[in-house]
Amino acid sequence: MSFKPNWIEQIAPNNSYRSIFKWGDPGYFKHPNEKLYELMKETFELTDEHFKEPINPGFEEVKVDVPIKLESRHIEVFQKMLGPENVRFDDYSRVKASFGKTMFDLMRLREKRIENLPDLVLFPKDREDVVKIVKYCNDHCIAIYPRGGGSTVTRGTECVKGGVCVDFTKHMNRILKLNEINHTVTVEPGIYGPKLEQALNEAPKIFGTKHRYTCGHLPQSFEYSTVGGWVVTRGAGQNSTYYGKIEDLVVCQEYITPIGEIKTKEYPRAALGPSIDQMMIGSEGAYGLLVSVTLKIFRYMPQNDQRFSFIFPSFHSAIEACREITQAGFGFPAVMRLSDPEETEIAFRLYGVKDTILDRLISLRGMKSMERCLLLGIAQGEKNYAKNVKRQIMKIARSFGAIYTTGYVAKRWEKGRFTDPYLRDDLHDFGIIIDTLECAVAWDQVEHVYKMVREYCKKRPKTVVMSHCSHFYPQGTNLYFIFIGMFKDIEEFVEYQSGILDNIVKSGAALSHHHGVGKLFAPWFEACIGRNQLEVLRALKKHFDPNNIMNPGGTLALDLPEEKKRMIQLA
Amino acid sequence: MSFKPNWIEQIAPNNSYRSIFKWGDPGYFKHPNEKLYELMKETFELTDEHFKEPINPGFEEVKVDVPIKLESRHIEVFQKMLGPENVRFDDYSRVKASFGKTMFDLMRLREKRIENLPDLVLFPKDREDVVKIVKYCNDHCIAIYPRGGGSTVTRGTECVKGGVCVDFTKHMNRILKLNEINHTVTVEPGIYGPKLEQALNEAPKIFGTKHRYTCGHLPQSFEYSTVGGWVVTRGAGQNSTYYGKIEDLVVCQEYITPIGEIKTKEYPRAALGPSIDQMMIGSEGAYGLLVSVTLKIFRYMPQNDQRFSFIFPSFHSAIEACREITQAGFGFPAVMRLSDPEETEIAFRLYGVKDTILDRLISLRGMKSMERCLLLGIAQGEKNYAKNVKRQIMKIARSFGAIYTTGYVAKRWEKGRFTDPYLRDDLHDFGIIIDTLECAVAWDQVEHVYKMVREYCKKRPKTVVMSHCSHFYPQGTNLYFIFIGMFKDIEEFVEYQSGILDNIVKSGAALSHHHGVGKLFAPWFEACIGRNQLEVLRALKKHFDPNNIMNPGGTLALDLPEEKKRMIQLA
Repeated sequence: MSFKPNWIEQIAPNNSYRSIFKWGDPGYFKHPNEKLYELMKETFELTDEHFKEPINPGFEEVKVDVPIKLESRHIEVFQKMLGPENVRFDDYSRVKASFGKTMFDLMRLREKRIENLPDLVLFPKDREDVVKIVKYCNDHCIAIYPRGGGSTVTRGTECVKGGVCVDFTKHMNRILKLNEINHTVTVEPGIYGPKLEQALNEAPKIFGTKHRYTCGHLPQSFEYSTVGGWVVTRGAGQNSTYYGKIEDLVVCQEYITPIGEIKTKEYPRAALGPSIDQMMIGSEGAYGLLVSVTLKIFRYMPQNDQRFSFIFPSFHSAIEACREITQAGFGFPAVMRLSDPEETEIAFRLYGVKDTILDRLISLRGMKSMERCLLLGIAQGEKNYAKNVKRQIMKIARSFGAIYTTGYVAKRWEKGRFTDPYLRDDLHDFGIIIDTLECAVAWDQVEHVYKMVREYCKKRPKTVVMSHCSHFYPQGTNLYFIFIGMFKDIEEFVEYQSGILDNIVKSGAALSHHHGVGKLFAPWFEACIGRNQLEVLRALKKHFDPNNIMNPGGTLALDLPEEKKRMIQLA
Repeated sequence: MSFKPNWIEQIAPNNSYRSIFKWGDPGYFKHPNEKLYELMKETFELTDEHFKEPINPGFEEVKVDVPIKLESRHIEVFQKMLGPENVRFDDYSRVKASFGKTMFDLMRLREKRIENLPDLVLFPKDREDVVKIVKYCNDHCIAIYPRGGGSTVTRGTECVKGGVCVDFTKHMNRILKLNEINHTVTVEPGIYGPKLEQALNEAPKIFGTKHRYTCGHLPQSFEYSTVGGWVVTRGAGQNSTYYGKIEDLVVCQEYITPIGEIKTKEYPRAALGPSIDQMMIGSEGAYGLLVSVTLKIFRYMPQNDQRFSFIFPSFHSAIEACREITQAGFGFPAVMRLSDPEETEIAFRLYGVKDTILDRLISLRGMKSMERCLLLGIAQGEKNYAKNVKRQIMKIARSFGAIYTTGYVAKRWEKGRFTDPYLRDDLHDFGIIIDTLECAVAWDQVEHVYKMVREYCKKRPKTVVMSHCSHFYPQGTNLYFIFIGMFKDIEEFVEYQSGILDNIVKSGAALSHHHGVGKLFAPWFEACIGRNQLEVLRALKKHFDPNNIMNPGGTLALDLPEEKKRMIQLA
């Protein structure tokens, strides 16, 4: 191509807005390829001209005029408590602490619409520091906002009531124990995915274990999210179909709450009344601060990986095949990812399959454009187990009319699995918004929810809407919606996003499969789980945090003002 | 043998004490075989003479002098509410309602030490009846005790504060929906195991489904316990290693609590904050009454069952092999059951292996009496999956020095899996007590807990103590202790049992793997889970049941008087 869009390759200055909102490694860039660029121009009727000058790239130094409300005597106490190097209150630190990675955050940062800043950012060195912070804040009614990697897409860590942000990534990022006998690892909450995973992979060298291990939890945000975030949001990794969601992986934990520590024990299972662990997982910092967690680990055996991919004639046939795969009783693949027709179509375009001989061959087998669907995946585990999982999937896929398209497609997906978010910043530089919403659905609701949400999304002209299912259970799956559009302002974007959430809840799906609720989805939370159920979470809140200092200001709708509730008329 | 003990074969009269405490089918008897009889005589130094006259067989009609405290105006309200046929207050119904199947219950019934009776037994017809009962009882502070099959071994349903027993087995025992798409079944709580399992097995005929199904949950009490009991005690079936414990099987549920209904939705998984489901599972009737539950179901494919058994040279080597089996990543067998040396020894005697050629062959391979251990099991699921599980287990077992002893032993165990409790009544007729206690342990604690508890148990002279592990996880297993002894009275028995519980808690094990806590184990509960954790359960109790009408009197130590706490000095 002759024209090359002016994709930014400049490393954003430290202390700039861009350094806050840009995804991932400051020096890494993954630009849209030529085909994606062409698709964007075509979709939004743009010319090369449009891609010459980035809009609001955010290279300016962060400067805000938001006074610190916390009295200086408190600041002095924290400085004495933690050491002055572990207490920050410069503009940059405060802004960085409050913003996450949802599109609403990125838009606000680019436009410098700065709000909801903490007064201080604290970096506890260990559990004892956390005990002191929580006690002091509770005694003086100072709001506490926990923070890990800051990859929240739910405004989960936004410091709505000021106060202090407690950042676990600086010090509390250690592996406390690898227990090979019990197949568990105990870590502090601020550890990032790669540090944990690499240590487990290299466990024989580092810990002298017999086997190599994996944590089995690899969300798309893996490189820039922490174990603490995974746990308190009730997250899922892309391999959860085999390894389980985080709530399946936590063995025991410790939280520091305003009323004391909540600590569970390393039992494999028990019949000891209601599960305290499952009350704390997903509590999103509103009950207490996670200070350590023990997770299951698994043998790391990448040599046994079995990759596969298929093209199905329709979304319906592919859904049916996936259901059969999860219900047939031969175990589960680690990864499975089913793209709907629009996502499949775009994948064909972006990966250069469109209009090739391969495309024609696939079409000749009756797989029509905008009907056909791509399924890819990887089976893991012991060698024969993984082989049998693939063999059974082949058999089932074929019985539903699929064509096998080799393991190459899965391998290619694996290579890009963590880097797609980089594309988002490039497109946003030219006013193009990519955002995602996801939900969970029982099998008998999948097609209904898909249709209802997609119909709403597609009502908007010039909007790409791709969907996929990426986490599978015998009882259902998730639906992940990716939309790409141009919006005149934040308000228009928010209204569109809200409409999608309305439709997710109205359709009967769970408001979130793995992103959590945070403050962004809180207005829909009561409509989703029901008032009595929400009151249970509030009763626990009152118990753990009588002064409402833990992540206050809407988290999980625990203290959501009446007027902020999105009233949904359920069918 | 010339002498035959006077095992009772008389069907106990309706309305007799025996009809309450006898296990299972009134007309079914399974007597100790000759070898068990010889073992008992030998162990307790008894002669045939001792087995001529049963002690306290309990054939008398139940008659008690416990006045009904509930005012007659309340009784009239219930009669009008439910129909007079669904309100009982005769002596027999009241006694039957309050007693379960733990040895302490059987001893009290035989000795006619009757206490803690409900005033009424109510039989709700449906959810709406339950709503009315709970509302009325809450308005008038009348205690409610839920009841299913009554197989509790924790005094779970004992009506300590009088009031009403709500029995779900008469009417609320229906299958509400079988959803083949979602692989779920929705039932009322009062349905017994076999009714559910048979309906699932025969689903193509009954519901017109494509496949046959199983609920995958088969506790030893299967025939005489209900789904409601499984859920609210956080139970496990004998096949849980593959299918999961009940908390893994519940998809959604509805409870009626004093503050309203708590109802969750049929999602496969979600990230919607703390899990309400996991707060209600295990709540043992202290938060509300379960009125319906949706469980996962599984394809029923008995034709694929792969049975196996092994003799290991030692408990240590067998434990190590079991750990490797659960951690190797090839899936899980449905059943695995590892007997300790004493249980293995007794199995050899009872099944006639002892002193046969087979015994000598095994001994020649270095498997010594009182060191060797029996492991048996069954792999289930899709054909190749089950075959591979067995193949991998064979490989691992051999690498730990085991001899393969065919699938026959597992088949034989299967035949008797539900009928062993019948033996208990026969032995008790002659003053011999069999009782069990169980706990859960991480792998690195198994041998320590086993040693500590066993040492305590064996300090008592003339006491058989058999142990096994029967539920396996990558992180650990359970330890199940069976003791057989003669006790001079209930008090001596209780003291011995309490000492075992002391040692379970002191050793660091979870107080229960699947029996639950109830009122019997409640005095140890705080020492096991810790005060702050118990206070969380109490906070929920206060929320759901502000008047403390739901299963009051010690359940889960929620309202345990200070003096009843067993103070354990933890290491």
